[in-house]
Amino acid sequence: MDRNTHFWVTYQISASDREDAELKAGQIAIEQSVEMPPSVVPDEARHYIGQVENLQQTAPHTWQTTLLFNKNLVDGDITQLLNVLFGNISLQPWASLVEAETSYLKTILKGPAYGIRGIRKALHVSGRALSCAVIKPIGTSPQSLAAMAGDFAAGGIDLIKDDHGLTNQSSAPFRERVQSCLKAIRQGEQVSGKRTLYFPNITTSPVRLMERYEQAVEMGADGVLMSPQLTGLESIHEIAQKGDVPLMAHPAFSGSFLVHEGGISPEFYFGRLMRLLGADSIIYPNARGRFSFSRELCQQINAACRDESGGLKGAFPTPGGGVDRNSISDFVRFYGNDVIFLIGGSLYQHPEGLKAAAAEFQQSLSI
Amino acid sequence: MDRNTHFWVTYQISASDREDAELKAGQIAIEQSVEMPPSVVPDEARHYIGQVENLQQTAPHTWQTTLLFNKNLVDGDITQLLNVLFGNISLQPWASLVEAETSYLKTILKGPAYGIRGIRKALHVSGRALSCAVIKPIGTSPQSLAAMAGDFAAGGIDLIKDDHGLTNQSSAPFRERVQSCLKAIRQGEQVSGKRTLYFPNITTSPVRLMERYEQAVEMGADGVLMSPQLTGLESIHEIAQKGDVPLMAHPAFSGSFLVHEGGISPEFYFGRLMRLLGADSIIYPNARGRFSFSRELCQQINAACRDESGGLKGAFPTPGGGVDRNSISDFVRFYGNDVIFLIGGSLYQHPEGLKAAAAEFQQSLSI
Repeated sequence: MDRNTHFWVTYQISASDREDAELKAGQIAIEQSVEMPPSVVPDEARHYIGQVENLQQTAPHTWQTTLLFNKNLVDGDITQLLNVLFGNISLQPWASLVEAETSYLKTILKGPAYGIRGIRKALHVSGRALSCAVIKPIGTSPQSLAAMAGDFAAGGIDLIKDDHGLTNQSSAPFRERVQSCLKAIRQGEQVSGKRTLYFPNITTSPVRLMERYEQAVEMGADGVLMSPQLTGLESIHEIAQKGDVPLMAHPAFSGSFLVHEGGISPEFYFGRLMRLLGADSIIYPNARGRFSFSRELCQQINAACRDESGGLKGAFPTPGGGVDRNSISDFVRFYGNDVIFLIGGSLYQHPEGLKAAAAEFQQSLSI
Repeated sequence: MDRNTHFWVTYQISASDREDAELKAGQIAIEQSVEMPPSVVPDEARHYIGQVENLQQTAPHTWQTTLLFNKNLVDGDITQLLNVLFGNISLQPWASLVEAETSYLKTILKGPAYGIRGIRKALHVSGRALSCAVIKPIGTSPQSLAAMAGDFAAGGIDLIKDDHGLTNQSSAPFRERVQSCLKAIRQGEQVSGKRTLYFPNITTSPVRLMERYEQAVEMGADGVLMSPQLTGLESIHEIAQKGDVPLMAHPAFSGSFLVHEGGISPEFYFGRLMRLLGADSIIYPNARGRFSFSRELCQQINAACRDESGGLKGAFPTPGGGVDRNSISDFVRFYGNDVIFLIGGSLYQHPEGLKAAAAEFQQSLSI
């Protein structure tokens, strides 16, 4: 098989024995390419049939297979790439997507426009991990959200994002919220003497997403937050290609791919796919929070997010989801500096208020 | 709790005992609403905190809970509705989304523009189930795909859809494919003496989807096919609201929500969500095909798709995924007439060719 015309994808298979695993590997090869019995594939399309390159047992009842797919199945369409990687086969509980050939993915996916260095440059911060706070909850007025944002900025926080559920509710309409928060943050920066970046949430209908993105940029937002599994995955790439501001990807609605035996490897999903699609900061559920990822898995995700081999920019792994403000020093030691720590509720529980919480958060990053 | 200001959502929970189930139900209520500890929710937002209405054990280690959410969490934004239903909680392997209040969903989601009656009217067919064939595979030229489509139409097939992987590949560019196929189908109709509807696949980047939809309509397509989990779920609704032609929803990339213990109930996903979002024909993996749904689950999906209570149109359940052309009569007896049977590869295996396969398929529907 010609490596110039084909790219590889690795899947994990649950199978009773080798024969069963071989059948299933062959089934993925067909399902994700021609999707019909090979005997009736017309001659002109025969070279589009997926091929099993290898199959090996990795654990009891568990096999890993590498398949080769014709690049012309995709022909540069990113949404179709996702369909070839995991479209129909998502419906088989015994299959999971492990990895795909980065050197091929990079011919289609352009990665972050800013990446770790771009965000550091915007903040003028090097040599330490970054902090991110959240303004919340839904139901709070723009004035109150702006007051929170101003306090976080005054305390010296690096980034502030909207709660990912803040869209354009009447309690805090998008334009009014973004304008109020930006103003409060710019004032807070005067107190702290440092930069704070604001990432409003632009998640909405896939068809109207770009409009909301443009509004955010026009109002002077420093970045944007979006939930790509809700807006359609390629929408990140479309926005990264615009390149006006860095973007942060939120994992809402993606969990079903990530927390069961089948699905997509979290390391590939967060560290490879989100980064190559163009996220500059990639939120994932941190160990010891409300969700179930292990610290080792988080480290694998971190490494994949930061990978700069081959010329694409590395993205900031952004662990969140119930991170306790008192655990940050521990995590910094384990994860290193190229991380954005995202803390939500725990900052609000600080007895001395948000400004003090932010200042303490900054302190814990300078170990 | 006021039923005018709140709507209900039901989740299933895996739990060790009642105490664990109570904790988890409370966790969903918070996670899907204010997403912060209730003690630090500001007064102005306290009525946005989700509430546990009831919790009951339904099987060993399995509980069902009904939660109430403030309608202002959503405020009419469909993508945000999906986020409230299953955004962050998708990351908990112990939680699955079972059902949500239809009378509330209907205030936001408008359902199919055509539905079962609209598609029957376009075809002038009543009193029997409908047939759908697929032109495939990727790699085949527009001329060959058009020849297949023409043969299917000459044999009297009701609907023809693109393989869901056909996008705009150089082997069969979108415009050329749609034009060639429509022409061949209109000629085939002269042979059969009946209507055949063509649904080209418009799936592509969420941001450019509407453009491809408009091209399809402008070229005279009779409907469109899309994979909403790839294009962003609300995109179906946007297109259904345009209302030019009926649309068929394909389940690519949705399997991880549907085939594990957590995730979303397939009955709710296909029968409720896809229909309310506006799909006129809803493809799901049929029993006895390549995928793992039981015949009973398929019947539940069928009933939910067809539901017209409350004034929204019913959609055509469209079982596919390895359906054998020889099993259709059996399925018609079990499923009844309001079904579109989707057959892919099996028609291509007919020894006498596609026209004969289509004619035989039509025959099997008239039992």
